[in-house]
Amino acid sequence: MAGDRRRKRENVSTRRLEAYTDGIFAIAATLLVLDLSVDGFGAVKSDGRLWDALVGLGDHFTSFIISFLLLCLLWVVHTRQFEHVRRVDSTVLTLNSLRLLAVVLIPFTTSINSAYNALPLGRALMPANFFVVILFGSMQWFYLTAQGRGMVEGMSQERVRATRWANVTVVVVGAGVVALAPFIGSWAFALFVVNGPIETALMRRDSKRHPEASPNPATSADSG
Amino acid sequence: MAGDRRRKRENVSTRRLEAYTDGIFAIAATLLVLDLSVDGFGAVKSDGRLWDALVGLGDHFTSFIISFLLLCLLWVVHTRQFEHVRRVDSTVLTLNSLRLLAVVLIPFTTSINSAYNALPLGRALMPANFFVVILFGSMQWFYLTAQGRGMVEGMSQERVRATRWANVTVVVVGAGVVALAPFIGSWAFALFVVNGPIETALMRRDSKRHPEASPNPATSADSG
Amino acid sequence: MAGDRRRKRENVSTRRLEAYTDGIFAIAATLLVLDLSVDGFGAVKSDGRLWDALVGLGDHFTSFIISFLLLCLLWVVHTRQFEHVRRVDSTVLTLNSLRLLAVVLIPFTTSINSAYNALPLGRALMPANFFVVILFGSMQWFYLTAQGRGMVEGMSQERVRATRWANVTVVVVGAGVVALAPFIGSWAFALFVVNGPIETALMRRDSKRHPEASPNPATSADSG
Amino acid sequence: MAGDRRRKRENVSTRRLEAYTDGIFAIAATLLVLDLSVDGFGAVKSDGRLWDALVGLGDHFTSFIISFLLLCLLWVVHTRQFEHVRRVDSTVLTLNSLRLLAVVLIPFTTSINSAYNALPLGRALMPANFFVVILFGSMQWFYLTAQGRGMVEGMSQERVRATRWANVTVVVVGAGVVALAPFIGSWAFALFVVNGPIETALMRRDSKRHPEASPNPATSADSG
Repeated sequence: MAGDRRRKRENVSTRRLEAYTDGIFAIAATLLVLDLSVDGFGAVKSDGRLWDALVGLGDHFTSFIISFLLLCLLWVVHTRQFEHVRRVDSTVLTLNSLRLLAVVLIPFTTSINSAYNALPLGRALMPANFFVVILFGSMQWFYLTAQGRGMVEGMSQERVRATRWANVTVVVVGAGVVALAPFIGSWAFALFVVNGPIETALMRRDSKRHPEASPNPATSADSG
Repeated sequence: MAGDRRRKRENVSTRRLEAYTDGIFAIAATLLVLDLSVDGFGAVKSDGRLWDALVGLGDHFTSFIISFLLLCLLWVVHTRQFEHVRRVDSTVLTLNSLRLLAVVLIPFTTSINSAYNALPLGRALMPANFFVVILFGSMQWFYLTAQGRGMVEGMSQERVRATRWANVTVVVVGAGVVALAPFIGSWAFALFVVNGPIETALMRRDSKRHPEASPNPATSADSG
Repeated sequence: MAGDRRRKRENVSTRRLEAYTDGIFAIAATLLVLDLSVDGFGAVKSDGRLWDALVGLGDHFTSFIISFLLLCLLWVVHTRQFEHVRRVDSTVLTLNSLRLLAVVLIPFTTSINSAYNALPLGRALMPANFFVVILFGSMQWFYLTAQGRGMVEGMSQERVRATRWANVTVVVVGAGVVALAPFIGSWAFALFVVNGPIETALMRRDSKRHPEASPNPATSADSG
Repeated sequence: MAGDRRRKRENVSTRRLEAYTDGIFAIAATLLVLDLSVDGFGAVKSDGRLWDALVGLGDHFTSFIISFLLLCLLWVVHTRQFEHVRRVDSTVLTLNSLRLLAVVLIPFTTSINSAYNALPLGRALMPANFFVVILFGSMQWFYLTAQGRGMVEGMSQERVRATRWANVTVVVVGAGVVALAPFIGSWAFALFVVNGPIETALMRRDSKRHPEASPNPATSADSG
């Protein structure tokens, strides 16, 4: 057993994985503001001109606000996922790096979205980028919650199953956003509004199919 | 009850909310320095010319210092608010994201303030931006301290009421700064100096009206 | 003894060293995206043109992805190293600063790599930069694990020796990458793939030579 | 007493002050790399030209390395100071904000240092900036360690006095660096090398004058 332990790398605490992730999300979200700049304002000599220049940044504001709030939302998803995880292996660390790689690209695809909003491709890249973040996030969650892996503590089997369905839902809705974005632009993100009802419906069907799965009081303590 | 718990999302620890907030405040505050740049200095061949170029950045320095110190102050406000909070729900997370959205815009409105300080609108946007940060901060605090929500620990009812009044005061003073800024520019921020006396006066009136509200020794332990 | 203690500075907790390191890695990794910019896209009036412009950024994408994932990997190495360290002295702090100095240069050498990928020197600088990060990391680990220093807790002697060999391996492989990069460019990084087998081979030889070195149950508890 | 406590604001934990400080130091140190850029390289068609372009960045590299390592050093000073502090009042938070304001300016004064190294004023501003960081750091430490304030735990009186002397020394040496910099440029920073011996000499004189001041075993436990 000692020999076995020697060969494989030990699991590490999630404390620094969380700190590193928080840092990258925070920086990516803040760099978005660099897209808003007075550099292109030219000669502005009156309040009316300044107002016009600001209105001219309209698409940039829209993209900025959408990307910022979605990054915050995806950060919340990461926070909720790791609320019940203490130690992780190399695979989780690698999946997290890929997830963060997609996060870091958001400022770039956001600036494409605001600069080339008139083109179908220009409208598709930012949603596609967010889709990849969501996809890696779901993969990470499916890996973490795989049966017998024991990385998630203090969640009932029933709750784990519900969160897995929720992840499937959000990937499907995300794919829908990517498909619609070339045609209707940032309005496609409104599709995430239907995510809630679909999620609830799926979870209800799930609990009908597995009526026996009432949470075990001993393991369902949500307060970690 | 289990079914009920299953449907609604559980509260999360504030640890990562604080780390994410600290990160965004720190980055927004540090990005302000990008507005100070030698790029526009042109050919500088003597100390006198260099000094002139630096003096020419005067408005930028003023805006930079005001914005940096106000961001630090607003960060302190956030820190003081969450000193007594352990776990939060989705609404608090959303209000925090909106608060941070306004924080991230500060570098942009600060550069408008320094570039277009000659125009009334140019002088109004940065104060307005700070006002929005303050407004969302107050909303978050009112939500957190709402009766029966139980998210704030170790504060007496009396102290909670006093902090709520303090929040009302700072919103009112912030509105005053926005109203004055188009006319007197950054001097309007001096209005925050009166915040202290007004706050004290309001708190005194409050404790006169509710003389019975002496802190319960069991719950007023300030050392969380 | 008191006089002796007075003269030398006391060891400090690794908590903030880790936070500072996480911050610098996160920022350096995120700044990489600034190299991807629409500024040079010129007039883009169709999806085809936008696609061409993106394809034109090909070298930048390659460099970005390699640098980001390697930075994440080197961050993982740092995390694994300090998993078992509680308090450190001034030498460790200085070595950490030098390690971070090399980390911070990565965005610069990465932009050289993408801009001058046609030149041997242009291809060599980014690998050389990563080599320096690896080198300082190894020096830090050798210092931390030196016999009798007692800074690393909860690792068996055998495991410490294995990690030291692993560090030697990665330095050698890193040197190989630097030597190959001028000729084959970023493909040289594929050499890191052989790192695993070499590491395993070296560790096996090591455990054959020191068969007595079975971990002491009392000190080999990996869960710190 | 309750009424008295009500009026004045309670002390806050240093946990977030440290996180915010770590963030700002890390970002300021990393932004320094933006000063190293291939933008001014022009047409580079051979390794020789690339080498020349890099050599042309010589002053930028020197300034970058000095500023980065000094920022790391000043971060270590902050870390050592707060190793023994648990909770702080508003004055400490304000002094910390001013200290960080000076830290955030470092990337700007560093770029002045590399761009205008030929001018006395161009050589003086970066050292002056570091001097201000050191000055506010010392003020903060003197405030924290003032007799009867009780903010610093687990340090003997003797050790506190020694650290205060060390702070005086570094302020004096810093002033010397500022005075020399216009004449000898970045070489002035070499003056910090004498800081060690001066500090030791001062501390020795201090312990001769107060020979009775042996640390109280009960309060001198350095392991917080």
